[in-house]
Amino acid sequence: MVLERLQQMSSHLSGKAVEHHPFDPLTKDEIAKAVAIVRESYNDVFFNAVTLYEPPKAEMLRWVENTEGVKRPKRIADVVTIGRGSKVYDGLVDLDEGKILSWELTEGVQPLITMEDLQNVESVVRKDPEVIKQCGIVGIPPEDMLKVYCDPWTIGYDERFGSKVRLQQALMYYRPHPDDCQYTYPLDFCPIYNADTQKIIHIDVPKVRRQLNKAKPINYHAEAIKKETGFRKDIKPLNITQPDGVSFSIDGRTLKWQNWSVHIGFNYREGIVLSNITYNDKGTIRPTFWRISLAEMVVPYGNPERPHQRKHAFDLGEYGGGYMTNSLALGCDCKGAIHYLDADFVNRAGEPTTIKNAICIHEEDAGVLFKHTDFRDESTTVTRARKLLISHIFTAANYEYCVYWIFHQDGTIQLEIKLTGILNTYALAPGEAAAPWGTEVYPGVNAHNHQHLFCLRLDPNVDGPANTVFVADAVAADAPVGSEENFYGNAFYARKTKVETMGAGMSDYDGQLSRTWEMANTGKLNPFSKKPVSYKLVSREVPPLLPKEGSLVWKRAGFARHAVHVTKYDDAQLHPAGRHVPQTSGSPSQGLPAWIAAAPSTPLDQEDVVLWHTFGLTHFPSPEDFPVMPAEPMTVLLRPRNFFTSNPCMDVPPSYSSTPSQVAAGKGGIRGVVDGLSRLAFGGREKGGSGECGGCS
Amino acid sequence: MVLERLQQMSSHLSGKAVEHHPFDPLTKDEIAKAVAIVRESYNDVFFNAVTLYEPPKAEMLRWVENTEGVKRPKRIADVVTIGRGSKVYDGLVDLDEGKILSWELTEGVQPLITMEDLQNVESVVRKDPEVIKQCGIVGIPPEDMLKVYCDPWTIGYDERFGSKVRLQQALMYYRPHPDDCQYTYPLDFCPIYNADTQKIIHIDVPKVRRQLNKAKPINYHAEAIKKETGFRKDIKPLNITQPDGVSFSIDGRTLKWQNWSVHIGFNYREGIVLSNITYNDKGTIRPTFWRISLAEMVVPYGNPERPHQRKHAFDLGEYGGGYMTNSLALGCDCKGAIHYLDADFVNRAGEPTTIKNAICIHEEDAGVLFKHTDFRDESTTVTRARKLLISHIFTAANYEYCVYWIFHQDGTIQLEIKLTGILNTYALAPGEAAAPWGTEVYPGVNAHNHQHLFCLRLDPNVDGPANTVFVADAVAADAPVGSEENFYGNAFYARKTKVETMGAGMSDYDGQLSRTWEMANTGKLNPFSKKPVSYKLVSREVPPLLPKEGSLVWKRAGFARHAVHVTKYDDAQLHPAGRHVPQTSGSPSQGLPAWIAAAPSTPLDQEDVVLWHTFGLTHFPSPEDFPVMPAEPMTVLLRPRNFFTSNPCMDVPPSYSSTPSQVAAGKGGIRGVVDGLSRLAFGGREKGGSGECGGCS
Repeated sequence: MVLERLQQMSSHLSGKAVEHHPFDPLTKDEIAKAVAIVRESYNDVFFNAVTLYEPPKAEMLRWVENTEGVKRPKRIADVVTIGRGSKVYDGLVDLDEGKILSWELTEGVQPLITMEDLQNVESVVRKDPEVIKQCGIVGIPPEDMLKVYCDPWTIGYDERFGSKVRLQQALMYYRPHPDDCQYTYPLDFCPIYNADTQKIIHIDVPKVRRQLNKAKPINYHAEAIKKETGFRKDIKPLNITQPDGVSFSIDGRTLKWQNWSVHIGFNYREGIVLSNITYNDKGTIRPTFWRISLAEMVVPYGNPERPHQRKHAFDLGEYGGGYMTNSLALGCDCKGAIHYLDADFVNRAGEPTTIKNAICIHEEDAGVLFKHTDFRDESTTVTRARKLLISHIFTAANYEYCVYWIFHQDGTIQLEIKLTGILNTYALAPGEAAAPWGTEVYPGVNAHNHQHLFCLRLDPNVDGPANTVFVADAVAADAPVGSEENFYGNAFYARKTKVETMGAGMSDYDGQLSRTWEMANTGKLNPFSKKPVSYKLVSREVPPLLPKEGSLVWKRAGFARHAVHVTKYDDAQLHPAGRHVPQTSGSPSQGLPAWIAAAPSTPLDQEDVVLWHTFGLTHFPSPEDFPVMPAEPMTVLLRPRNFFTSNPCMDVPPSYSSTPSQVAAGKGGIRGVVDGLSRLAFGGREKGGSGECGGCS
Repeated sequence: MVLERLQQMSSHLSGKAVEHHPFDPLTKDEIAKAVAIVRESYNDVFFNAVTLYEPPKAEMLRWVENTEGVKRPKRIADVVTIGRGSKVYDGLVDLDEGKILSWELTEGVQPLITMEDLQNVESVVRKDPEVIKQCGIVGIPPEDMLKVYCDPWTIGYDERFGSKVRLQQALMYYRPHPDDCQYTYPLDFCPIYNADTQKIIHIDVPKVRRQLNKAKPINYHAEAIKKETGFRKDIKPLNITQPDGVSFSIDGRTLKWQNWSVHIGFNYREGIVLSNITYNDKGTIRPTFWRISLAEMVVPYGNPERPHQRKHAFDLGEYGGGYMTNSLALGCDCKGAIHYLDADFVNRAGEPTTIKNAICIHEEDAGVLFKHTDFRDESTTVTRARKLLISHIFTAANYEYCVYWIFHQDGTIQLEIKLTGILNTYALAPGEAAAPWGTEVYPGVNAHNHQHLFCLRLDPNVDGPANTVFVADAVAADAPVGSEENFYGNAFYARKTKVETMGAGMSDYDGQLSRTWEMANTGKLNPFSKKPVSYKLVSREVPPLLPKEGSLVWKRAGFARHAVHVTKYDDAQLHPAGRHVPQTSGSPSQGLPAWIAAAPSTPLDQEDVVLWHTFGLTHFPSPEDFPVMPAEPMTVLLRPRNFFTSNPCMDVPPSYSSTPSQVAAGKGGIRGVVDGLSRLAFGGREKGGSGECGGCS
C-alpha cells in the first residue's frame, strides 16, 4: 500500500500523471497531496473530508466548449478538518500550485459523522457505568454488555446541548447472539456521546420503562434460514450474457452510450454526480443537464414522544451518501457485463482510502421500446429497448438505499431508488400500543411511522444554461358544458405557469392536476410544435413534509417544505440543508430557505436556474417489512418534451419489421435483433405462423 | 384446419375431452358447439361474441374448496349475435346439456365492433361518391382513392343518430405510398357508416377546410430507416438464458410460481383475467384476490370542436382488449424462456378462430430483492429478486397497449401498462394553431390532448371474501407544535376511513395525502400488529376525468368520475360502462353509477366487495411521440400489509450472505445464487477483496 502510494505520488510530482477531467473526483494521490499540504501548516487536526472543489461553472462552461483552447480549470481540494475542542476548519487547497488557498475556523457548526466516528461509540457505550446501570434496569446484566450494540446517529439537534459540542445519540440494541438481528431487541434509553471527549454525557430515559424484549430471534441471513425453514428450491437460474460486450464506452469518467454522453463524478456527500449530460441529436451535441445529483435527504419519524423527535436523519448531509457506499459484487448486486468505478476518500488520519466497485455501470433489457401493428394487414414493427444504469448502494445504519440513474434510448433520464435494509425500531412493552405512531412489526418491536424525503438537485442545461421553469397542470377548460366553446364539455389543456422569481419559485405537488414541471429554453422553439424545447420532471411519489410548519424538522429541512424550489445558479449553493448539517437548529434555516430569503426578487426567466425537487414516500411499517424489507422502488423521470423533432430512437434496430408492401407481396419483413437464445418454456417448436418470427410476420 | 377441428369436436362428443377448469376460456370445440346449438334455432344471425359465461361466484367458491366432492360448475357460453336490421340477441347456451338457456332480443344497444366490422369500412368509404367528392375538396383526385384509408371507430355517441342503428365513424387518412404512415396525412372530414346497410349515411365536414398535408413522409419501419438514416450500430446483443428451465409450472391454465397460484383466463373484452389468486404462506394456502382484470377504459380527447367530442374510445367495451390482441413472437416481444397461451374466439360467420401466442408468461430478473450490510463488520446479505409476468399486447387502431400482470416474491401484485403505437391525429392547416387543445407534432399534423383512463376491477379475497375497504391517508397530527402531545411537531399517522356503503364508496385521489386504499379482512388481525390483514392499492398515476361533470364523456364513462368506487359483489356486474357500450348515451349512465344509484345504502363492511379503480394518464403530445411513441409505462401495485407475519421472501436463496460470526472468524459467508456468466465489461479480473464475491465478503 505504502509503496503503491509513493509511486503514485512520485509519478504525480514528476509531472507524468494523466490530466484529469476537471469534474473527476480527487484521486488517492491528490488526496494524499492535499493532506500533505495541510499538514505542513496544521498538524493538529483530523480529517473529515477531502473532496473535489468543483471549478466555477462559468469557467467550466468555457473549458467544455473549447477544451484545447482554454486553460484547464485547476484541481482544488475542498478540505474539512476537526481540531481539538471540536473546532472545525474549512479549507481550500490548490493542488496545482501546492498551496492552501483559504483556511477558516467555522464556528457553531458540526461536519458530518464519518464511518470512523460511528465505529467508536459502541465500545464507549459498553463501558460507561451509567449505560451499564440502564442496561441493568431493562434486564441486561453487566456481564452481557458485549451483547449491547448501538447505532450512533448524529444527535440531529437537541436544544439542551446546542451546536458547539460534537454529539451523537446512541440508539441502543441488544443481540442474544452476535448473529442475531439487533433491531428485534431495541432498548428504551438513549445515551448522548461527546465525540470530542469520547464520553457519554447524558442518557435520555423514558418515564415508562420497557424491559428487554423476550421474543425469539428472527433473522434473515443464510445460516438462520437454513436452520429455520431452509431455502426454497424452485427458483431456477436466469443468466444474462452480452457476447459482443457492452454498448457503452468510457474515457476517463466520461461515458458514451446510445447518443448520450455523461461525466460520472462521485463525492462523499451526494454519491454519484452526473455532469455535462448531452444527447447527440443526429450529429448535433445538445446539452440537457449540466449537473444532477441527490443533494440531500431527510427521514423524519412520526412519534412525538421525546427523544424520538431527534430521529430525522439527513443521510447525505449528516453521514454522506458517498462515505456509506457499498463495495459491489459481480453477479450478485449486478448481473451481466459490468464496469465498476472505485471511490477514493480520506480517513480521519489523513490517509487515502478506497471503496472498490463503488459505482456499477451496466445495461439492461428494457422490454418493448415501441411497437405498432396495422390492423389491416398485420404489418408490424417491434423494437426492444435497452437502458443504461449507473448505480450505487449505500447503507445508512439500518437502512439501505439503492440509487439507479437510468438513461433511456428515447432521451429520458430516470432516477430509481430502491429502499431496503432494516426498519429503525424502538422497544414496546407488553400490552403497550404502537398505534398510531408506529406498528408492532414483531412481538415487542415498535417500528415508527417515517418518511424518506430526497432532494434531487437538477441544474438544467436545455440547449444552454438560460432556462425557465414552468409549473404544468392538466386542467379542464373554463367554459361550461353546453357553451359554444365547449358544447360537449370535453375540452382540456395544459396550463403552464412561469416561475418568475426565486421568491415565487416554490410549488407543491398536486396529483389531481397531474402536475409536472418543465425546464424549458424559451429562446429555442421546437420547429414543429413551436413550443420551447424542454425537459419535464415527472414525479408521482411526492408526499408533503408531514412534520408541521414551525416544527424542528420543518426548520432544519427547509428544502422539504415544498416539492419544488427554483433558484438562480450559484457556485456556492450545492447543499440545500447547509454545508454542515449536524446540529443545525433550523433557526434560521440553512440552505434553500436562506438563499431564497436573501434574494427573493431574483429573476428566473431565461436565467441559469437550478430546480430542487423533494420527493419520496411515507412509510407506515407492517410486519412484512421485518426483519429485512423487500426493496420498495420509487421513480422520477426527466422526459424530453418538444426537445426533439421526432421520436429520437427510431433508428434502434427492430426485432422485427414488415411493411404493408412486404405483406402484400407475401414476403416476410426483416428479422432484426432477436434474442436467438430465447426458448419455449416447456420445449417444442414455436407455434407462430411463419416459423421464423412467430406471429410477427 | 378443418380436420383438426373435426377431430377436436369428435373427441368432445365422444366424451374423451379433458374436463376444463370452470374458469378456462371456451375452447374452439366449445365455441363451435355453442354456435351449432344456436344455429339450430337461429340461423339468420352473425356472431359478435361467444365467450365463457363464468359460473356464479357462490357456486365456484364451493367448488374451489372441494373440487372432488362438489359438482363441477357447468360450461355455459355467453353469446352475442346480431341479426338483420341491427337486431341484437343476447343468449346463454348450456354446453353440457347442449341447449339454449336464454335468448333475448336486446333493444337499443349495440355490441362492440369486431376486427371484421372494422375491416369492411375502408373499401366502402373508398367507393362512396360523397367521400370521393370530399377527398377532391381537400386535394385528393378520384384516381387516388386507393391511397385513402380510414380507422373506423364506433361512433361513440352522436345525439343526431341515437343508438338504434349500428354506426361507425371513419377517421380519414391518406398514404402517398402504401408503406407511409397514414397518421401524417389526416383528412379533415368524417364519414358515418351504417354497419347494417354497409353504406355511408352522413359526412361531418368542418366549417374551415384543411387541404391534404404536403409534408414529406416520416416513417419508422425498417425499410424507411434504412433509407433515411440507417440503423445505429452501437447496440450489442443482450441475451437471457435459463439453462435449467423456468421456475413456474402450469396445469391447464393454473400457474404456480414462488408460492403463488393463479388461474389465467382470457376473454374478448378484458383480455387477461386472473382468478383465485392464492399465496402459500408456509404451508397455508391463503386467498388474496378472487378475480382481477382490466374491466374497461376510456380515452377522451380534449378538443371541443365537433365532431372530436366523439373521440373517446372505450377500447375494451367498444372493441375488446382480447379481440385486438397481438400474436407474440419469441425473442422479439418476449425474451428468455417463454410459455405462450393461445386465445380462441368466434368470427362473424360462427367459426372458431385462434390468436396464436396471445398470452406470454415468463420470468425476469428484478434486481435487488433485499440487502443489508452491518456497518460494523460489513457482514452482508444480498438477495436478488425474480418476477413473473403474464402479459398481452393489444392494438386499438393507432394505439398499442402492453399489459403486464406481474407477480413478485414479496407478495406484491403489479399491473404495468406500457403505451406505445401511434398518436391519433387530425389535419392542421398552414398557419392554424394546434394549441391549446393539441400540439403540432409534425408539419400539418395536430395531435389532440387526451387521457388514457383504465378501470381495474379488483375482487379482493383477503383471507376470504368478507372484506372491507379503507381509504388510508398520511396526515400530520392535529396537535400543534409546542403542545404537550406534539411538542416538536413531528407527529403523523395513517388516517383510515372505512367505506360503509355503496353510496359512500366513491373516493378521489389525493397525492398530498399519499392516498392508498386498503382491502382488509377485519375479521382476521395480524398476530403481531393487531391490524387487519390487508392488501393495499398503491396507485400514483390517477388523473381525474377532465371532461366536465355533465359532459358527454362524464355521462358515458361513469366509472371514471372517481378514482375508486366500491360495490357489493354481484355476478352480473362485470362491465363498469355497461355490457354493450357503443352508442350508449350516458342518459342514464350504465354500469357503476347505475348499480350504485340502485342500492346506495348497501352495506359494505365485512361484505363481499369489489373495488373499481380508475387510473391512467393525461397525454399532451409532443413531437418526440411521433411517428411512433416510445413506450410510456404506468404502474399500479397491490401490496400485502399486515398480511404476513414477516417478510415472506426471506427463504429466497441469497446471492451472498455472511454473518458477524463468520466475518469475525475470518471465514467468508456463503456464495449463493450468483450469475456466474456475469463479467467485467472491459475484461480483467474482478478487483474485489476476497476474489470470490467481490466486496461482499
